[in-house]
Amino acid sequence: MSSEVAPQNSSLPQPGPRRLPSAGPINPTAGASCRLRPVPYRAVSITGGLWQARQQVNREVAIPRGRDHLERAGNLPNLRIAAGIAVGETRGPVFMDSDLYKWLEAAAWEYGRDPSDDLLLTQREVTALIAAAQQPDGYLNSVIQGRRAGERYRDLPWSHELYCAGHLIQAAVARARCTGERALLEVGMRFADHLFETFGPDRRHDVDGHPVVEMALVELFRETGQRRYLELAKYFVDARGHGLMQGYGHEPTYFSDRVPVRAQRSVEGHAVRALYLAAGATDVAMELGDEDLLDALTSQFADMVATKAYLTGGLGSRWDLEAFGDPYELPSDRAYAETCAAIAGVQWAWRMLLATADPSYADFVERTLFNGFLAGISIGGSEYFYVNPLQVRPGAHADHDRSAAHGRRGWFECACCPPNVMRTLASLGSYLATTDDSGLQLHLYSPSSITATVGGAECRVSVETDYPWDGGIRVHVEQTPPAEWTLSLRVPVWAEDATLTVNGTEHSATAGEYADVRRAWASGDVVELALPMPVRWTAADERIDAARGCVAVERGPLVYAVEQVDQAEGVVIDEILVDLKQPAQAELRPDLLGGVVSVRLRGLAVEPTRSRWPYRRAHATALSSSEDMSSEDREIIAVPYFAWANRGVGPMRVWLPRL
Amino acid sequence: MSSEVAPQNSSLPQPGPRRLPSAGPINPTAGASCRLRPVPYRAVSITGGLWQARQQVNREVAIPRGRDHLERAGNLPNLRIAAGIAVGETRGPVFMDSDLYKWLEAAAWEYGRDPSDDLLLTQREVTALIAAAQQPDGYLNSVIQGRRAGERYRDLPWSHELYCAGHLIQAAVARARCTGERALLEVGMRFADHLFETFGPDRRHDVDGHPVVEMALVELFRETGQRRYLELAKYFVDARGHGLMQGYGHEPTYFSDRVPVRAQRSVEGHAVRALYLAAGATDVAMELGDEDLLDALTSQFADMVATKAYLTGGLGSRWDLEAFGDPYELPSDRAYAETCAAIAGVQWAWRMLLATADPSYADFVERTLFNGFLAGISIGGSEYFYVNPLQVRPGAHADHDRSAAHGRRGWFECACCPPNVMRTLASLGSYLATTDDSGLQLHLYSPSSITATVGGAECRVSVETDYPWDGGIRVHVEQTPPAEWTLSLRVPVWAEDATLTVNGTEHSATAGEYADVRRAWASGDVVELALPMPVRWTAADERIDAARGCVAVERGPLVYAVEQVDQAEGVVIDEILVDLKQPAQAELRPDLLGGVVSVRLRGLAVEPTRSRWPYRRAHATALSSSEDMSSEDREIIAVPYFAWANRGVGPMRVWLPRL
Repeated sequence: MSSEVAPQNSSLPQPGPRRLPSAGPINPTAGASCRLRPVPYRAVSITGGLWQARQQVNREVAIPRGRDHLERAGNLPNLRIAAGIAVGETRGPVFMDSDLYKWLEAAAWEYGRDPSDDLLLTQREVTALIAAAQQPDGYLNSVIQGRRAGERYRDLPWSHELYCAGHLIQAAVARARCTGERALLEVGMRFADHLFETFGPDRRHDVDGHPVVEMALVELFRETGQRRYLELAKYFVDARGHGLMQGYGHEPTYFSDRVPVRAQRSVEGHAVRALYLAAGATDVAMELGDEDLLDALTSQFADMVATKAYLTGGLGSRWDLEAFGDPYELPSDRAYAETCAAIAGVQWAWRMLLATADPSYADFVERTLFNGFLAGISIGGSEYFYVNPLQVRPGAHADHDRSAAHGRRGWFECACCPPNVMRTLASLGSYLATTDDSGLQLHLYSPSSITATVGGAECRVSVETDYPWDGGIRVHVEQTPPAEWTLSLRVPVWAEDATLTVNGTEHSATAGEYADVRRAWASGDVVELALPMPVRWTAADERIDAARGCVAVERGPLVYAVEQVDQAEGVVIDEILVDLKQPAQAELRPDLLGGVVSVRLRGLAVEPTRSRWPYRRAHATALSSSEDMSSEDREIIAVPYFAWANRGVGPMRVWLPRL
Repeated sequence: MSSEVAPQNSSLPQPGPRRLPSAGPINPTAGASCRLRPVPYRAVSITGGLWQARQQVNREVAIPRGRDHLERAGNLPNLRIAAGIAVGETRGPVFMDSDLYKWLEAAAWEYGRDPSDDLLLTQREVTALIAAAQQPDGYLNSVIQGRRAGERYRDLPWSHELYCAGHLIQAAVARARCTGERALLEVGMRFADHLFETFGPDRRHDVDGHPVVEMALVELFRETGQRRYLELAKYFVDARGHGLMQGYGHEPTYFSDRVPVRAQRSVEGHAVRALYLAAGATDVAMELGDEDLLDALTSQFADMVATKAYLTGGLGSRWDLEAFGDPYELPSDRAYAETCAAIAGVQWAWRMLLATADPSYADFVERTLFNGFLAGISIGGSEYFYVNPLQVRPGAHADHDRSAAHGRRGWFECACCPPNVMRTLASLGSYLATTDDSGLQLHLYSPSSITATVGGAECRVSVETDYPWDGGIRVHVEQTPPAEWTLSLRVPVWAEDATLTVNGTEHSATAGEYADVRRAWASGDVVELALPMPVRWTAADERIDAARGCVAVERGPLVYAVEQVDQAEGVVIDEILVDLKQPAQAELRPDLLGGVVSVRLRGLAVEPTRSRWPYRRAHATALSSSEDMSSEDREIIAVPYFAWANRGVGPMRVWLPRL
């Protein structure tokens, strides 16, 4: 696929009858214990606004360039070597295959969203290569095959062999759902069958150092109906947490192997590992109706959100071991908040939402998508953040290729994040709506068209909105069965004083709940949800030391950042105390950063003491640190956090010291 | 040496005439450009108080146990394998030899301070082993010889071969100075000669990834008069900072290889590496009278102290890469503040003091020794901190053998810190006093006896004090030449309202300066310096986000910490706002932690919001975060930071949120 070829509708002969993709990334079985069910993948179409623009850039820039990077970095060449159709040295880290699989999954979802010959051909080509590299018994890993003479599972805590298998299976399921082509699914099933024969309580009792295969196996079960995949996923969830991974250079904590999943009441260790495991365990709990496991996951999620989440939804506060920190250890400057962790957090939260119908999970999905996730890709779609700090200091020095002080980068030596962003953006529509027996629930707001089955018959609604810039949301009922059903609209937890009208008549709407309207709908009915979006000043829990004495700016679902580049001459963002008594004003700026609402604040410019030693006598009476300073009232401009570092990288703050 | 054998005066025959050790660890030549000169090593004796107790424990516990650890961990066995007197597998990290050398240096300084047969015999035994392991051309590294078949300098950024050489040379110089025995000095010179023949502008143009050899070579030059060692040290200083170490997995920054030393105006990268390099460069600058280099080092030190030092004198704020952070990036919880970095900071500051006579360097030495350094060893002398945070949170989980949440440990896989502490404690007396042409300067206060040469004749003073618990310091002149000379007493920068009397007559004394008294002294003269030690509340620069809205408690040279273990039931140290308007009271507690002055504070116990999401609406009028809380006035106990974690490890804070 070349970036010069414009997307177009597919005219290639299809291998089977053309059909709409039945399911998105998560498709619980009919027997699963879940309160909500996703709508079919192609039943949701994002038709405008911020997310459509991002999906378009993902299709036109990110995915084509991704393939180029995968060629240059060695991911595709590695597979060619493994397939015996090229010779050379296998390159890159042990998880190289997974980057390609995530990219392939992105291509599949993108094809499912809007088919094109290019997208189909590239999937077929890469699938053929993968199939050729697979070994006769189903095993496949180009790095192990190319570099370790095929010696398998020698170093499972680090080798990522099952991790790669998991991403292969996820791509295979996506390909099957979006194209109807089963070639990759067969590769994935052969690998999964090999895993089933290799691992288990009576076989090799072991797990991969990096979870993801759990989610993948459950989805493969959902797609194929083969229960052994679910059993294997359950085995991997249960086997973990018993210290299998001792003596591998890190504590078992790092590998989520210190405490069994169903005994764990918090999140710890490597953030992405812990989150993928939790998401997979939630799938297992849903499919098995395992309430004990779901209870543990509910506690874990609650503890994470209460003590270990950034305001942006970012997760994982330590560079060291890419780990969750201790409770309330949430530094802004050294936040790791890996883009993949944001994605994993969304995957877990979405599954918890399906399982419980608790709107707080949807709040978290929204918060993360608009902030901690979306900051991970540049507006132009060609560059990525691996690490997403909430502060960059003046004089920051980038000493690592992942450091945000470099600005976003086209690719990374460890390139997990870019293709993870691609598959998430491509499949984003699947997070907008669900159904249950009573009706249709809308969780995320975007201009969109949604078809769903309610009470056995089809309904169609369209959503009109300028969200997230404006809180007005109009839902048009375009097609409906005659029987009553409930339309539920999520009222975000921040949306105080929300109002809801149905054809002009007021209904109740409470922040943090779903506003349910049950009636016999008629085509042409209009539901209007108005979510007031004043600028909000947000303070942190007293125990979050990193944000003490500070406020953040939020508006609607967006967290704001103050970048040095927006400020008038003489305004140094680290030398400002924000004045909360002066009004903060939102302003639509179509010219700025692809069109955003910026916020104007007021604050005092304070001149810090320039001293040889940065510690001084504290005064008993002074509550503000501005005591000794000359000060001047200044305007400060804030922009959405997701849009920062799109004009070069410089000093930035989310948490602003206050008067 | 066995820990059962009590120390005793040496009765072994000495190889040469018995003499007092001429010099301590740093002994600039007569031609060096330095304003102050150390007094001879045995001219200072610490005769009581806190430091004597620590020296005794160092001798009786730390050094004997250190040898046991070096045996068990493989350091001594590795050398036996290299010497061909044992067989087996070489163990441990590449810098194993250096741990032994530092321990041997500690034994030498300890012998120089107070000789014993045990200390002499153990030095001779280990020296014989080292000499036997040395290769004919002078090269020596047991790990390279045992594990890499002697393939030298293949991976200099990581192999620590010159780093080990440096520590060998430092031990050799200490042995020569303290015992008069030259066997190890000859080993060191052979190695140094080999290095001189191998490295240089016309030979191999390269440097070790970990500095220390620079300091060592200058000291070897000072001890032997061989100028080639100084030349080689200068070469290593000048060669650095030109990106020699590209592509070794870390940026050149990590290796202090991004910016030439004389162009550098800050400190960056791996803290211990950067600090050892700076200390060695200061030695080079002194010996060569290189003012340009000294200017650069002066700027670096000033920038470090103004923007990258903890209140404790701790240096290096990042676990990741053990590095200095960006300016003002000084988290309390994730402070790395390696014990070795504190020691390296003292080594550099002391050299800067010698070069410049600026008392602020002595202030920094004192601050670091009493706080960031001394916390690195338990009061009992058997356990160490590698990492010295300023905060441990409730619920902190130790995921690394270096984590303070474990408490101190007897040894580490990377065991650089313990023997570094030992050599520093043993030689601590050498940091108390200096001389110049006009007289004697006292920098650190301890019960002590100091002999020095002023105006060509000998003087002797004794110091009587309960420092650091009390600020009263009595200096008795016990012997003096008849001619006038100046006695200078450092008045610490924190000592406002200090007073000085000479035989009861007042003299001037200004905080942050030396109080100079020039006169014709007579035996029996008494100088009394009174340093008021009220409890001080200390605030941080506005840009140190981690300490915003907080105060620390200091008294005299000590930084205080609040440990959970000292608090009454119901006082949770993370839920207290300190009230600066209520008096803080110091109290001598002979029963506590080996005898300390504790401090009683008052504060409000505030109940944090227990919420599902730790971010909430900020109120425009509230300056304190206590707005919504019920609160109760409570007593809070603080203890010296150096003494924390001697009763198990639990929640601890240096920076306390304030009302």
